[in-house]
Amino acid sequence: MNTVTLDFNGKKVELKATKIIAVARNYRAHADEMGQSVSENPNIFLKPPSAMISNNGVVILPKMSNRVDYEVELAVVIKNRCCKVSPHEALKNILGYTIIVDITARDIQAKAIKTGLPWTVAKGFDTFAPIGPKIVPARDIDISNLDIWLKINGEFRQHSNTRNMIFPVKELISYISKIMTLEPLDVIATGTPEGVGPIQHGDSIEAGIEGIGTLMFKAEQETVEGA
Amino acid sequence: MNTVTLDFNGKKVELKATKIIAVARNYRAHADEMGQSVSENPNIFLKPPSAMISNNGVVILPKMSNRVDYEVELAVVIKNRCCKVSPHEALKNILGYTIIVDITARDIQAKAIKTGLPWTVAKGFDTFAPIGPKIVPARDIDISNLDIWLKINGEFRQHSNTRNMIFPVKELISYISKIMTLEPLDVIATGTPEGVGPIQHGDSIEAGIEGIGTLMFKAEQETVEGA
Repeated sequence: MNTVTLDFNGKKVELKATKIIAVARNYRAHADEMGQSVSENPNIFLKPPSAMISNNGVVILPKMSNRVDYEVELAVVIKNRCCKVSPHEALKNILGYTIIVDITARDIQAKAIKTGLPWTVAKGFDTFAPIGPKIVPARDIDISNLDIWLKINGEFRQHSNTRNMIFPVKELISYISKIMTLEPLDVIATGTPEGVGPIQHGDSIEAGIEGIGTLMFKAEQETVEGA
Repeated sequence: MNTVTLDFNGKKVELKATKIIAVARNYRAHADEMGQSVSENPNIFLKPPSAMISNNGVVILPKMSNRVDYEVELAVVIKNRCCKVSPHEALKNILGYTIIVDITARDIQAKAIKTGLPWTVAKGFDTFAPIGPKIVPARDIDISNLDIWLKINGEFRQHSNTRNMIFPVKELISYISKIMTLEPLDVIATGTPEGVGPIQHGDSIEAGIEGIGTLMFKAEQETVEGA
Protein backbone atom coordinates (compact mmCIF):
# COMPACT_ATOMS: atom_id res chain seq x y z
CA MET A 1 0.00 0.00 0.00
CA ASN A 2 1.15 3.50 -0.71
CA THR A 3 1.52 4.90 2.77
CA VAL A 4 -0.52 8.07 2.92
CA THR A 5 0.55 10.48 5.65
CA LEU A 6 -1.46 13.65 6.19
CA ASP A 7 -0.82 16.67 8.34
CA PHE A 8 -3.31 17.03 11.20
CA ASN A 9 -2.89 20.01 13.47
CA GLY A 10 0.86 20.08 12.82
CA LYS A 11 1.26 16.34 13.47
CA LYS A 12 1.74 13.65 10.85
CA VAL A 13 -1.04 11.03 10.76
CA GLU A 14 -0.57 7.85 8.76
CA LEU A 15 -3.95 7.17 7.19
CA LYS A 16 -4.25 3.47 8.03
CA ALA A 17 -7.89 3.12 7.00
CA THR A 18 -9.45 -0.31 7.38
CA LYS A 19 -12.08 0.79 4.88
CA ILE A 20 -13.12 3.62 2.58
CA ILE A 21 -16.89 3.92 2.38
CA ALA A 22 -18.04 6.02 -0.55
CA VAL A 23 -21.48 7.41 -1.25
CA ALA A 24 -23.05 7.41 -4.71
CA ARG A 25 -25.59 9.99 -5.90
CA ASN A 26 -25.43 12.40 -2.99
CA TYR A 27 -25.81 15.55 -5.11
CA ARG A 28 -29.03 15.77 -7.10
CA ALA A 29 -27.48 17.51 -10.12
CA HIS A 30 -24.93 14.68 -10.41
CA ALA A 31 -27.62 11.97 -10.15
CA ASP A 32 -29.50 13.87 -12.89
CA GLU A 33 -26.48 14.03 -15.20
CA MET A 34 -26.01 10.26 -14.81
CA GLY A 35 -29.71 9.61 -15.48
CA GLN A 36 -30.03 8.03 -12.03
CA SER A 37 -32.73 8.32 -9.42
CA VAL A 38 -32.09 9.39 -5.82
CA SER A 39 -32.79 6.71 -3.20
CA GLU A 40 -34.51 6.78 0.15
CA ASN A 41 -31.22 5.80 1.83
CA PRO A 42 -27.65 6.67 0.84
CA ASN A 43 -26.11 4.30 -1.73
CA ILE A 44 -22.78 3.16 -0.38
CA PHE A 45 -19.86 1.19 -1.76
CA LEU A 46 -16.32 0.32 -0.67
CA LYS A 47 -13.02 1.35 -2.16
CA PRO A 48 -9.95 -0.61 -1.01
CA PRO A 49 -7.39 1.27 1.12
CA SER A 50 -4.77 0.07 -1.37
CA ALA A 51 -6.18 2.63 -3.83
CA MET A 52 -5.05 5.65 -1.80
CA ILE A 53 -2.29 7.96 -3.03
CA SER A 54 -0.97 11.18 -1.49
CA ASN A 55 -1.10 14.76 -2.73
CA ASN A 56 1.08 15.28 -5.83
CA GLY A 57 0.74 11.62 -6.78
CA VAL A 58 0.02 9.94 -10.10
CA VAL A 59 -3.22 8.22 -11.05
CA ILE A 60 -2.56 5.32 -13.39
CA LEU A 61 -5.21 4.90 -16.08
CA PRO A 62 -5.54 1.10 -16.36
CA LYS A 63 -5.41 -0.70 -19.69
CA MET A 64 -8.58 -2.58 -18.70
CA SER A 65 -10.60 0.63 -19.05
CA ASN A 66 -11.28 3.03 -21.92
CA ARG A 67 -12.74 5.78 -19.79
CA VAL A 68 -11.57 6.88 -16.34
CA ASP A 69 -13.44 9.73 -14.64
CA TYR A 70 -12.68 12.19 -11.82
CA GLU A 71 -15.17 12.81 -8.97
CA VAL A 72 -14.16 15.35 -6.31
CA GLU A 73 -15.61 14.71 -2.83
CA LEU A 74 -15.44 15.91 0.75
CA ALA A 75 -13.83 13.13 2.83
CA VAL A 76 -14.59 12.48 6.48
CA VAL A 77 -11.87 10.86 8.62
CA ILE A 78 -13.24 8.94 11.60
CA LYS A 79 -11.81 9.45 15.08
CA ASN A 80 -13.60 6.90 17.26
CA ARG A 81 -14.83 3.38 16.82
CA CYS A 82 -18.58 3.82 16.53
CA CYS A 83 -21.61 1.71 15.79
CA LYS A 84 -25.30 2.58 15.47
CA VAL A 85 -24.86 6.26 16.29
CA SER A 86 -27.69 8.75 15.92
CA PRO A 87 -27.24 11.71 13.54
CA HIS A 88 -27.06 13.88 16.65
CA GLU A 89 -24.14 11.87 18.06
CA ALA A 90 -22.42 11.29 14.73
CA LEU A 91 -20.32 14.42 14.49
CA LYS A 92 -18.36 13.79 17.69
CA ASN A 93 -16.84 10.70 16.04
CA ILE A 94 -15.10 12.74 13.34
CA LEU A 95 -11.38 13.50 13.47
CA GLY A 96 -11.52 15.92 10.57
CA TYR A 97 -12.07 16.54 6.90
CA THR A 98 -9.98 16.28 3.77
CA ILE A 99 -10.42 15.97 -0.01
CA ILE A 100 -10.71 12.72 -1.94
CA VAL A 101 -11.13 12.14 -5.66
CA ASP A 102 -13.16 9.00 -6.30
CA ILE A 103 -11.53 7.89 -9.53
CA THR A 104 -13.88 5.62 -11.48
CA ALA A 105 -13.49 3.41 -14.56
CA ARG A 106 -16.78 4.59 -16.04
CA ASP A 107 -17.02 1.97 -18.78
CA ILE A 108 -16.48 -0.86 -16.29
CA GLN A 109 -19.00 0.70 -13.89
CA ALA A 110 -21.59 1.10 -16.66
CA LYS A 111 -21.28 -2.59 -17.51
CA ALA A 112 -21.60 -3.53 -13.83
CA ILE A 113 -24.74 -1.40 -13.44
CA LYS A 114 -26.25 -2.96 -16.56
CA THR A 115 -25.56 -6.54 -15.44
CA GLY A 116 -26.18 -6.09 -11.71
CA LEU A 117 -22.59 -6.89 -10.78
CA PRO A 118 -20.50 -5.24 -8.03
CA TRP A 119 -18.80 -1.89 -8.61
CA THR A 120 -15.56 -3.09 -7.01
CA VAL A 121 -13.34 -3.25 -10.10
CA ALA A 122 -14.59 0.08 -11.47
CA LYS A 123 -13.81 1.80 -8.16
CA GLY A 124 -10.92 -0.27 -6.84
CA PHE A 125 -7.80 0.03 -9.03
CA ASP A 126 -4.53 1.07 -7.39
CA THR A 127 -4.17 4.90 -7.36
CA PHE A 128 -7.96 5.42 -7.68
CA ALA A 129 -8.21 7.36 -4.41
CA PRO A 130 -6.02 10.48 -4.29
CA ILE A 131 -6.53 11.96 -0.82
CA GLY A 132 -5.23 15.05 1.02
CA PRO A 133 -3.49 17.45 1.24
CA LYS A 134 -4.20 17.56 5.01
CA ILE A 135 -6.88 16.78 7.59
CA VAL A 136 -8.60 19.89 8.92
CA PRO A 137 -9.76 19.24 12.51
CA ALA A 138 -13.54 18.93 12.75
CA ARG A 139 -13.79 21.75 15.30
CA ASP A 140 -12.02 24.19 12.94
CA ILE A 141 -14.46 24.00 10.02
CA ASP A 142 -18.19 24.19 9.28
CA ILE A 143 -18.70 21.77 6.43
CA SER A 144 -22.32 22.68 5.72
CA ASN A 145 -21.49 25.41 3.20
CA LEU A 146 -18.15 24.98 1.43
CA ASP A 147 -17.31 25.52 -2.22
CA ILE A 148 -16.02 22.33 -3.87
CA TRP A 149 -14.43 22.20 -7.30
CA LEU A 150 -12.14 20.33 -9.68
CA LYS A 151 -9.97 21.69 -12.48
CA ILE A 152 -8.18 19.84 -15.25
CA ASN A 153 -5.17 21.64 -16.73
CA GLY A 154 -6.42 24.83 -15.08
CA GLU A 155 -10.04 24.68 -16.35
CA PHE A 156 -13.02 24.22 -14.06
CA ARG A 157 -14.88 20.95 -14.63
CA GLN A 158 -16.79 20.66 -11.33
CA HIS A 159 -17.92 23.53 -9.13
CA SER A 160 -20.59 23.20 -6.48
CA ASN A 161 -21.08 23.58 -2.74
CA THR A 162 -21.41 21.06 0.08
CA ARG A 163 -24.81 22.56 0.95
CA ASN A 164 -26.12 20.70 -2.11
CA MET A 165 -25.58 17.28 -0.52
CA ILE A 166 -28.79 15.27 -0.30
CA PHE A 167 -27.74 13.40 2.87
CA PRO A 168 -25.60 15.57 5.17
CA VAL A 169 -22.52 14.11 6.86
CA LYS A 170 -24.24 13.35 10.17
CA GLU A 171 -26.91 11.31 8.40
CA LEU A 172 -24.33 9.45 6.32
CA ILE A 173 -22.39 8.44 9.42
CA SER A 174 -25.54 7.40 11.26
CA TYR A 175 -26.74 5.27 8.33
CA ILE A 176 -23.38 3.63 7.63
CA SER A 177 -22.82 2.88 11.33
CA LYS A 178 -26.08 0.90 11.44
CA ILE A 179 -24.54 -1.48 8.90
CA MET A 180 -20.85 -1.56 9.71
CA THR A 181 -18.82 -0.44 12.71
CA LEU A 182 -16.63 2.52 11.84
CA GLU A 183 -13.02 2.35 12.98
CA PRO A 184 -10.47 5.10 13.71
CA LEU A 185 -9.03 6.49 10.45
CA ASP A 186 -11.74 4.99 8.30
CA VAL A 187 -12.64 7.35 5.47
CA ILE A 188 -16.09 8.30 4.20
CA ALA A 189 -16.24 9.86 0.72
CA THR A 190 -19.45 11.88 0.76
CA GLY A 191 -20.36 11.95 -2.94
CA THR A 192 -19.54 14.11 -5.92
CA PRO A 193 -21.39 17.05 -7.48
CA GLU A 194 -22.20 17.40 -11.19
CA GLY A 195 -19.62 17.88 -13.92
CA VAL A 196 -17.87 14.50 -13.86
CA GLY A 197 -15.90 13.53 -16.94
CA PRO A 198 -12.84 11.72 -18.21
CA ILE A 199 -9.18 12.27 -17.45
CA GLN A 200 -6.48 11.64 -20.03
CA HIS A 201 -2.82 10.72 -20.01
CA GLY A 202 -0.79 13.82 -19.15
CA ASP A 203 -3.60 15.74 -17.44
CA SER A 204 -2.88 17.79 -14.32
CA ILE A 205 -5.82 17.69 -11.91
CA GLU A 206 -6.47 20.07 -9.02
CA ALA A 207 -9.31 19.33 -6.59
CA GLY A 208 -10.27 21.95 -4.02
CA ILE A 209 -12.56 22.48 -1.07
CA GLU A 210 -12.90 25.89 0.60
CA GLY A 211 -11.13 25.90 3.96
CA ILE A 212 -9.27 22.64 3.31
CA GLY A 213 -6.97 23.43 0.39
CA THR A 214 -6.15 21.76 -2.89
CA LEU A 215 -5.21 18.21 -3.80
CA MET A 216 -3.11 17.82 -6.94
CA PHE A 217 -2.33 14.81 -9.07
CA LYS A 218 -1.35 13.84 -12.59
CA ALA A 219 -2.71 11.07 -14.80
CA GLU A 220 -0.61 8.56 -16.72
CA GLN A 221 -1.63 5.70 -18.95
CA GLU A 222 -0.67 2.23 -17.69
CA THR A 223 1.95 0.75 -19.95
CA VAL A 224 2.15 -2.82 -18.62
CA GLU A 225 -1.05 -4.54 -17.57
CA GLY A 226 0.99 -7.05 -15.66
CA ALA A 227 0.89 -10.78 -15.56
CA MET B 1 -13.58 -4.18 15.02
CA ASN B 2 -13.90 -7.59 16.52
CA THR B 3 -10.30 -8.63 16.77
CA VAL B 4 -9.95 -11.99 15.07
CA THR B 5 -6.93 -14.01 16.16
CA LEU B 6 -6.20 -17.29 14.42
CA ASP B 7 -3.70 -20.01 15.18
CA PHE B 8 -1.01 -20.34 12.52
CA ASN B 9 1.61 -23.03 13.07
CA GLY B 10 1.19 -22.79 16.86
CA LYS B 11 1.48 -18.98 16.85
CA LYS B 12 -1.37 -16.51 17.25
CA VAL B 13 -1.88 -14.22 14.26
CA GLU B 14 -4.19 -11.22 14.57
CA LEU B 15 -6.01 -11.04 11.27
CA LYS B 16 -5.58 -7.33 10.55
CA ALA B 17 -6.87 -7.46 6.99
CA THR B 18 -6.96 -4.18 5.08
CA LYS B 19 -9.47 -5.79 2.75
CA ILE B 20 -11.52 -8.90 2.16
CA ILE B 21 -11.94 -9.62 -1.55
CA ALA B 22 -14.71 -12.07 -2.29
CA VAL B 23 -15.48 -13.87 -5.52
CA ALA B 24 -19.02 -14.35 -6.83
CA ARG B 25 -20.11 -17.27 -9.02
CA ASN B 26 -16.94 -19.36 -8.85
CA TYR B 27 -18.76 -22.72 -8.76
CA ARG B 28 -20.92 -23.42 -11.81
CA ALA B 29 -23.63 -25.28 -9.88
CA HIS B 30 -24.06 -22.24 -7.60
CA ALA B 31 -24.25 -19.81 -10.54
CA ASP B 32 -26.89 -22.13 -12.02
CA GLU B 33 -28.99 -22.22 -8.84
CA MET B 34 -28.93 -18.38 -8.74
CA GLY B 35 -29.91 -18.17 -12.42
CA GLN B 36 -26.66 -16.32 -13.16
CA SER B 37 -24.20 -16.62 -15.99
CA VAL B 38 -20.50 -17.29 -15.51
CA SER B 39 -18.20 -14.47 -16.67
CA GLU B 40 -14.98 -14.40 -18.63
CA ASN B 41 -13.19 -12.95 -15.57
CA PRO B 42 -13.86 -13.54 -11.87
CA ASN B 43 -16.55 -11.29 -10.37
CA ILE B 44 -15.13 -9.69 -7.27
CA PHE B 45 -16.51 -7.58 -4.47
CA LEU B 46 -15.30 -6.27 -1.11
CA LYS B 47 -16.47 -7.10 2.39
CA PRO B 48 -15.33 -4.73 5.17
CA PRO B 49 -12.85 -6.14 7.73
CA SER B 50 -15.29 -4.92 10.41
CA ALA B 51 -17.56 -7.83 9.43
CA MET B 52 -15.16 -10.51 10.68
CA ILE B 53 -15.97 -12.64 13.72
CA SER B 54 -14.05 -15.55 15.23
CA ASN B 55 -14.92 -19.21 15.54
CA ASN B 56 -17.81 -19.81 17.97
CA GLY B 57 -19.15 -16.30 17.36
CA VAL B 58 -22.66 -15.03 16.73
CA VAL B 59 -23.98 -13.74 13.39
CA ILE B 60 -26.54 -11.00 13.96
CA LEU B 61 -29.44 -11.11 11.49
CA PRO B 62 -30.11 -7.42 10.81
CA LYS B 63 -33.58 -5.93 11.02
CA MET B 64 -32.98 -4.29 7.62
CA SER B 65 -33.13 -7.73 5.94
CA ASN B 66 -35.79 -10.41 5.70
CA ARG B 67 -33.48 -13.10 4.37
CA VAL B 68 -29.89 -13.76 5.38
CA ASP B 69 -28.03 -16.60 3.66
CA TYR B 70 -24.95 -18.69 4.44
CA GLU B 71 -22.20 -19.29 1.84
CA VAL B 72 -19.23 -21.46 2.87
CA GLU B 73 -15.95 -20.64 1.13
CA LEU B 74 -12.26 -21.48 1.13
CA ALA B 75 -10.38 -18.36 2.32
CA VAL B 76 -6.85 -17.46 1.25
CA VAL B 77 -4.74 -15.38 3.64
CA ILE B 78 -2.07 -13.33 1.88
CA LYS B 79 1.55 -13.36 3.09
CA ASN B 80 3.34 -10.81 0.93
CA ARG B 81 2.45 -7.49 -0.59
CA CYS B 82 1.98 -8.32 -4.25
CA CYS B 83 0.85 -6.61 -7.40
CA LYS B 84 0.37 -7.88 -10.96
CA VAL B 85 1.58 -11.40 -10.25
CA SER B 86 1.29 -14.18 -12.81
CA PRO B 87 -0.73 -17.29 -11.93
CA HIS B 88 2.60 -19.11 -11.76
CA GLU B 89 3.97 -16.70 -9.14
CA ALA B 90 0.70 -16.27 -7.25
CA LEU B 91 0.94 -19.18 -4.85
CA LYS B 92 4.17 -18.06 -3.19
CA ASN B 93 2.30 -15.02 -1.87
CA ILE B 94 -0.05 -17.11 0.26
CA LEU B 95 0.38 -17.48 4.02
CA GLY B 96 -2.25 -20.15 4.32
CA TYR B 97 -5.87 -21.18 4.11
CA THR B 98 -8.87 -21.01 6.37
CA ILE B 99 -12.68 -21.10 6.20
CA ILE B 100 -14.95 -18.09 5.73
CA VAL B 101 -18.73 -17.91 5.54
CA ASP B 102 -19.80 -15.06 3.27
CA ILE B 103 -23.02 -14.11 5.03
CA THR B 104 -25.34 -12.29 2.61
CA ALA B 105 -28.57 -10.34 3.03
CA ARG B 106 -30.14 -11.96 -0.03
CA ASP B 107 -33.15 -9.66 -0.31
CA ILE B 108 -30.93 -6.57 -0.23
CA GLN B 109 -28.54 -8.15 -2.75
CA ALA B 110 -31.43 -9.06 -5.09
CA LYS B 111 -32.63 -5.46 -5.07
CA ALA B 112 -29.07 -4.22 -5.75
CA ILE B 113 -28.68 -6.61 -8.68
CA LYS B 114 -32.04 -5.50 -10.13
CA THR B 115 -31.24 -1.79 -9.84
CA GLY B 116 -27.53 -1.94 -10.68
CA LEU B 117 -26.45 -0.71 -7.26
CA PRO B 118 -23.44 -1.87 -5.24
CA TRP B 119 -23.56 -5.07 -3.18
CA THR B 120 -21.89 -3.41 -0.20
CA VAL B 121 -24.82 -3.31 2.22
CA ALA B 122 -25.93 -6.87 1.39
CA LYS B 123 -22.42 -8.17 2.08
CA GLY B 124 -21.15 -5.71 4.67
CA PHE B 125 -23.07 -5.91 7.94
CA ASP B 126 -21.14 -6.45 11.16
CA THR B 127 -20.70 -10.21 11.89
CA PHE B 128 -21.22 -11.14 8.19
CA ALA B 129 -17.78 -12.76 7.89
CA PRO B 130 -17.22 -15.63 10.35
CA ILE B 131 -13.64 -16.82 9.73
CA GLY B 132 -11.44 -19.56 11.19
CA PRO B 133 -10.86 -21.75 13.12
CA LYS B 134 -7.16 -21.57 12.15
CA ILE B 135 -4.84 -20.82 9.24
CA VAL B 136 -3.32 -23.95 7.71
CA PRO B 137 0.11 -23.08 6.24
CA ALA B 138 0.07 -23.13 2.44
CA ARG B 139 2.88 -25.72 2.28
CA ASP B 140 0.89 -28.18 4.41
CA ILE B 141 -2.16 -28.51 2.20
CA ASP B 142 -3.11 -29.14 -1.45
CA ILE B 143 -6.24 -27.07 -1.96
CA SER B 144 -7.07 -28.39 -5.43
CA ASN B 145 -9.24 -31.26 -4.16
CA LEU B 146 -10.84 -30.68 -0.76
CA ASP B 147 -14.36 -31.45 0.40
CA ILE B 148 -16.22 -28.33 1.50
CA TRP B 149 -19.55 -28.36 3.33
CA LEU B 150 -21.95 -26.50 5.58
CA LYS B 151 -24.46 -27.89 8.08
CA ILE B 152 -27.30 -26.15 9.88
CA ASN B 153 -28.40 -27.77 13.14
CA GLY B 154 -26.50 -30.90 12.08
CA GLU B 155 -28.01 -31.22 8.56
CA PHE B 156 -25.97 -30.86 5.38
CA ARG B 157 -26.98 -27.87 3.27
CA GLN B 158 -23.86 -27.45 1.11
CA HIS B 159 -21.46 -30.21 0.10
CA SER B 160 -19.01 -29.90 -2.77
CA ASN B 161 -15.31 -29.98 -3.49
CA THR B 162 -12.79 -27.23 -4.27
CA ARG B 163 -11.98 -29.00 -7.54
CA ASN B 164 -15.29 -27.56 -8.82
CA MET B 165 -14.01 -23.98 -8.72
CA ILE B 166 -14.21 -22.27 -12.10
CA PHE B 167 -11.18 -20.03 -11.47
CA PRO B 168 -8.54 -21.74 -9.31
CA VAL B 169 -6.81 -19.82 -6.51
CA LYS B 170 -3.72 -18.94 -8.54
CA GLU B 171 -5.85 -17.35 -11.25
CA LEU B 172 -7.95 -15.45 -8.72
CA ILE B 173 -4.84 -13.96 -7.10
CA SER B 174 -3.33 -13.07 -10.46
CA TYR B 175 -6.53 -11.37 -11.65
CA ILE B 176 -7.17 -9.46 -8.41
CA SER B 177 -3.55 -8.32 -8.18
CA LYS B 178 -3.84 -6.67 -11.61
CA ILE B 179 -6.50 -4.39 -10.13
CA MET B 180 -5.48 -3.88 -6.53
CA THR B 181 -2.26 -4.50 -4.63
CA LEU B 182 -2.68 -7.31 -2.11
CA GLU B 183 -1.33 -6.66 1.38
CA PRO B 184 -0.16 -9.05 4.11
CA LEU B 185 -3.17 -10.60 5.92
CA ASP B 186 -5.64 -9.58 3.23
CA VAL B 187 -8.26 -12.28 2.76
CA ILE B 188 -9.64 -13.69 -0.48
CA ALA B 189 -12.95 -15.57 -0.24
CA THR B 190 -12.91 -17.90 -3.22
CA GLY B 191 -16.63 -18.39 -3.87
CA THR B 192 -19.33 -20.75 -2.62
CA PRO B 193 -20.69 -23.98 -4.06
CA GLU B 194 -24.39 -24.75 -4.57
CA GLY B 195 -26.89 -25.23 -1.77
CA VAL B 196 -27.06 -21.70 -0.35
CA GLY B 197 -30.10 -20.83 1.73
CA PRO B 198 -31.35 -18.86 4.71
CA ILE B 199 -30.30 -18.97 8.34
CA GLN B 200 -32.76 -18.31 11.14
CA HIS B 201 -32.59 -17.01 14.68
CA GLY B 202 -31.31 -19.79 16.93
CA ASP B 203 -29.58 -21.81 14.20
CA SER B 204 -26.24 -23.49 14.87
CA ILE B 205 -24.03 -23.46 11.79
CA GLU B 206 -20.98 -25.61 11.14
CA ALA B 207 -18.81 -24.93 8.08
CA GLY B 208 -16.06 -27.37 7.18
CA ILE B 209 -13.22 -27.88 4.75
CA GLU B 210 -11.25 -31.11 4.59
CA GLY B 211 -7.78 -30.63 6.12
CA ILE B 212 -8.65 -27.29 7.71
CA GLY B 213 -11.32 -28.10 10.28
CA THR B 214 -14.69 -26.68 11.19
CA LEU B 215 -15.89 -23.15 11.84
CA MET B 216 -18.92 -22.84 14.12
CA PHE B 217 -21.31 -19.98 14.75
CA LYS B 218 -24.83 -19.25 15.90
CA ALA B 219 -27.38 -16.86 14.45
CA GLU B 220 -29.41 -14.34 16.44
CA GLN B 221 -31.98 -11.81 15.32
CA GLU B 222 -31.01 -8.17 15.86
CA THR B 223 -33.25 -6.63 18.48
CA VAL B 224 -32.27 -2.96 18.24
CA GLU B 225 -31.57 -1.46 14.83
CA GLY B 226 -29.89 1.43 16.47
CA ALA B 227 -30.20 5.12 16.09
